[in-house]
Amino acid sequence: MNIQERIKSTIRDIPDFPKAGILFKDITPILTDAKLSQDITRELANYWKKFDLDVIIGIESRGFLWGSALAQALSLPFVIARKKGKLPAETYEFKYDLEYGTAEIEIHKGAFVEGSKALIHDDLLATGGTARAAAELVKLAGGEVAGFSFLVELSFLSGAKVLDEYKTPIHSLVTY
Amino acid sequence: MNIQERIKSTIRDIPDFPKAGILFKDITPILTDAKLSQDITRELANYWKKFDLDVIIGIESRGFLWGSALAQALSLPFVIARKKGKLPAETYEFKYDLEYGTAEIEIHKGAFVEGSKALIHDDLLATGGTARAAAELVKLAGGEVAGFSFLVELSFLSGAKVLDEYKTPIHSLVTY
Repeated sequence: MNIQERIKSTIRDIPDFPKAGILFKDITPILTDAKLSQDITRELANYWKKFDLDVIIGIESRGFLWGSALAQALSLPFVIARKKGKLPAETYEFKYDLEYGTAEIEIHKGAFVEGSKALIHDDLLATGGTARAAAELVKLAGGEVAGFSFLVELSFLSGAKVLDEYKTPIHSLVTY
Repeated sequence: MNIQERIKSTIRDIPDFPKAGILFKDITPILTDAKLSQDITRELANYWKKFDLDVIIGIESRGFLWGSALAQALSLPFVIARKKGKLPAETYEFKYDLEYGTAEIEIHKGAFVEGSKALIHDDLLATGGTARAAAELVKLAGGEVAGFSFLVELSFLSGAKVLDEYKTPIHSLVTY
């Protein structure tokens, strides 16, 4: 099996989470397969090493799982984008719409120098709202959005379309 | 400088976070020092490789940062302990007291086989309440608590005392 098939055969479908009618893609079984988890980090590093990157942004909290490992694999600084109120120092904030209500994420001011080329990483690309918020935070901080990296893309939710405006590579290891 | 000195000189003190009178130890500058971040993973792996471990438990969300990298470095399964309501499948839950109110964390049922020796990892040991909750989850799932791993220990909050009951090694890279 190639890595795409291994990932797909390891992800677990959970019906009706977080609410009725939604089939949730549970990536936690990947984490308990140490070999697959290592291979994913290697595969991501292999893909992104050919790009000119200065920093990786990991989105809380599942974006920390391979984001941190990828940053270490590529010897790049890792900046965490967290839900509002979690980061202790001064932040840039970006509020965005969810299906019901709004969410807000932040990054620390001064987390990277102006002009830095930033790769945004999360485990899942769904509607693209959170990844777009992270991209806007990068711009607020004077950075340049250099790419988006996901483990899983739910293409029927058209998140990649939302991220098109940044004119950067969007890479997902597996797509449904 | 040795790694302890490098960590201490990189951690940033933020006064009055999350509330007045508390001096918060901000570890995010460590993440942006790629070399130090890699060295921390290596140091943690070096320490824990001599123990007989079957699984690493990372506590949401900063426990994911080096927990995931450590699990990959040691080729061990990684299980995430998350705040209530985030894990999609059936869970074990454990509620514990905070200074004000309560918190609850969960792990997935079946995340590891019974009898597994589990290392519990988080970035910070403060009062020990969260680490103890993770240890109780390990026991609920039929596992054995084999150790606790932290980047930073605030010894004046006596968290290590709370974890004494498990009679396992408690390792912190730096202590204040």
